[in-house]
Amino acid sequence: MSVRPLATAEIVAVGTELLGTTRLDTNSLFLAGRLGDLGIELRAKSVVADDRGRLRDVFLAAMSRSDLVVLTGGLGPTDDDLTREVVAGALERPLSEDAAIVEHIRARFERRGLRMPDVNRRQAMVPAGATVLDNPNGTAPGLLIDHGGQIVVLLPGPPRELKPMFDRLCDGILGDRTKGWRIYRQSIFVAGRGESHVEEIAQPIYSRWTKETPPIETTILAVPGQVELHLTLRGTRSAESECRLVAARDELVAALRNDVFSIDGRSMEEVVGSLLRERRMTISAAESCTGGLFLTRLTDIAGSSDYVIGGAIAYSNSLKSAFADVPSDLIDRYGAVSEPVAVAMADGIRQRTGASLGIGITGVAGPGGGSPDKPVGTVVIALSADGQAARVRTFSLIGGRQQVRFQAAQTALDMVRRHLSGY
Amino acid sequence: MSVRPLATAEIVAVGTELLGTTRLDTNSLFLAGRLGDLGIELRAKSVVADDRGRLRDVFLAAMSRSDLVVLTGGLGPTDDDLTREVVAGALERPLSEDAAIVEHIRARFERRGLRMPDVNRRQAMVPAGATVLDNPNGTAPGLLIDHGGQIVVLLPGPPRELKPMFDRLCDGILGDRTKGWRIYRQSIFVAGRGESHVEEIAQPIYSRWTKETPPIETTILAVPGQVELHLTLRGTRSAESECRLVAARDELVAALRNDVFSIDGRSMEEVVGSLLRERRMTISAAESCTGGLFLTRLTDIAGSSDYVIGGAIAYSNSLKSAFADVPSDLIDRYGAVSEPVAVAMADGIRQRTGASLGIGITGVAGPGGGSPDKPVGTVVIALSADGQAARVRTFSLIGGRQQVRFQAAQTALDMVRRHLSGY
Repeated sequence: MSVRPLATAEIVAVGTELLGTTRLDTNSLFLAGRLGDLGIELRAKSVVADDRGRLRDVFLAAMSRSDLVVLTGGLGPTDDDLTREVVAGALERPLSEDAAIVEHIRARFERRGLRMPDVNRRQAMVPAGATVLDNPNGTAPGLLIDHGGQIVVLLPGPPRELKPMFDRLCDGILGDRTKGWRIYRQSIFVAGRGESHVEEIAQPIYSRWTKETPPIETTILAVPGQVELHLTLRGTRSAESECRLVAARDELVAALRNDVFSIDGRSMEEVVGSLLRERRMTISAAESCTGGLFLTRLTDIAGSSDYVIGGAIAYSNSLKSAFADVPSDLIDRYGAVSEPVAVAMADGIRQRTGASLGIGITGVAGPGGGSPDKPVGTVVIALSADGQAARVRTFSLIGGRQQVRFQAAQTALDMVRRHLSGY
Repeated sequence: MSVRPLATAEIVAVGTELLGTTRLDTNSLFLAGRLGDLGIELRAKSVVADDRGRLRDVFLAAMSRSDLVVLTGGLGPTDDDLTREVVAGALERPLSEDAAIVEHIRARFERRGLRMPDVNRRQAMVPAGATVLDNPNGTAPGLLIDHGGQIVVLLPGPPRELKPMFDRLCDGILGDRTKGWRIYRQSIFVAGRGESHVEEIAQPIYSRWTKETPPIETTILAVPGQVELHLTLRGTRSAESECRLVAARDELVAALRNDVFSIDGRSMEEVVGSLLRERRMTISAAESCTGGLFLTRLTDIAGSSDYVIGGAIAYSNSLKSAFADVPSDLIDRYGAVSEPVAVAMADGIRQRTGASLGIGITGVAGPGGGSPDKPVGTVVIALSADGQAARVRTFSLIGGRQQVRFQAAQTALDMVRRHLSGY
């Protein structure tokens, strides 16, 4: 008998506490990863309150669309734990008590010198035809129902109970039902370009791939300081699938060229740190508008004391002179936010600290301090390297104070990256 | 005409990137809070891929069940931004281009000296009968549709665009459509004490309130660098409800005394900034293990150039001498992580910069660099003030590198707060 393979999945997390202001359904991140490995496409996920009607609706909607529905939570012993009962009702599979489960729960309590409360019998109720999934880490067993080829899985909410249980399913019945397929992923991080610029270059390339078999899906995402391209391919479990996706990624990387800073998920500060370490170079910075954020980010990386010497936060003009030897007449003549001052800061801090590279950052982070010719968001960044003329550029960054500061630090890190890469 | 009040809501977050293994829909936490304040019950939330059919299904299911449906994300300019189009289609409201929005977007690009890419015109498409919600922080406007008494709201995904937009709706049309009661909240932030210490003092006080009518609920939350007490009261929309909660808060504040640093949600850096401004004092810092984080946090606050002079990031020992005049024999004798060196850093940077206060921070952030007598997490902080002996303390902070650095900066800020408050 051939069984339809599992291609699509949905996750339903059950619990009113997941609809408040503090807790998120983090189990779904783990489940998404495991599903992805099996080549099962996660199409949607929901969080639903401990409410009989609502849960039934959401569950039946998921069943109408997906091969696999994974429900998490709501398997406890109390009145508001409804998952078992609602799923059994929706699938018209009567519940009956499983003596082996009652014994398992009773034994757990007895090991702690306790009597099993009567409410815990609820956890031993099993829908007709369901497979019981052992839970070595808690009282609530999981359940798996093969419902005419569709699979429904009920898992307890606590991560330490849910994870090993789902891992075993992936190695077992779920893996058997999906053999031969998985989803491959690649991502590309770009700096120094806006989302629409990246889209203009990337779209003509990736739009071809959506027509191929199997298609490669591409999504573009703008987050502060970078644009991300995420590529996914659902293909046969083979080196060929993986190579096709890597080749696709490399085609985009070739088109986006030097603007690509990471193809392995590493952050800008990690990339710059690795380059500094490889080149055996050291760095220092004189920061004004970023107030230390450039060096804070670089020193967030463990081991950064090998290449970060330190620097100055020269918020006041007098400190620009005292710590980075910026001639005060330069500030008088051009203003503190100017290319000559940024260059003097970069040169000065490099020479003062004996670092191989010096960075100078000066700008208007806002909300105050802007002027018609130097509005909020104007940031000047200079890079000084021994024996070379300093590089300097003026940027117009958008957003609030935090965004301007973050992007200024990101842009300065990106200038270091480009310099060290010889771009 | 009387309009049905909004009683139930669902949130639909749109984006394939939210179905992967790393990102969660954190906007829903903020939205849940604001909906809760209005007495609107959040019954479910979903995350759905950038997929036309799937999004349409999930949206229509939400419309079949809830008075208010809030969709977030998918309003960008690219091909995979489908929210606008799918909602318009599902509600049978044709889209047409809004000239004012095109102009707004064009002007945003022009302010940065750029030409508006043609793809951005998609963001100006408005469904028939929709109200356009201004977005001062981005190109994508929000949309509100009153669909026969049900309300549909489309918000951009980035939090800094979504939050102010939804706040304005809560003060306006959504607030007008609710039921006459609301949830009041107060919070108290404590520094320098652990969760169990705070619980010991607070529990005898707040446990009384749970028996009153309506009850005041109190939760204690430990987050990096602070312990938070959150008080909530669900009551009629009245000054009386609010006053009762304020009186309760003040009773806890009186018991927790000098350890309370904020009762209005302000962060430690905001509180310290205000105190410096009030006292007309200035500050500088010499930072080692925090790598600039202390000054980065202080300068995150708008207007901080009035009281932050700047400082030095003295990662290397030679910079401790060069920028903060730490005698090198002091480092040789006591080690870089020691009370004499922290005091010399604080005194030195204060005198060098002419600030009223100087801070010195030196420590072992980890994961490397620890020793038996100075393990990872050892941090020494000194505060120097003109005409007074410096204060200095050694702390044992726990957690990974990021936690140690954050708590070190927080503790240094708290020392400044206590000093300026005369504690």
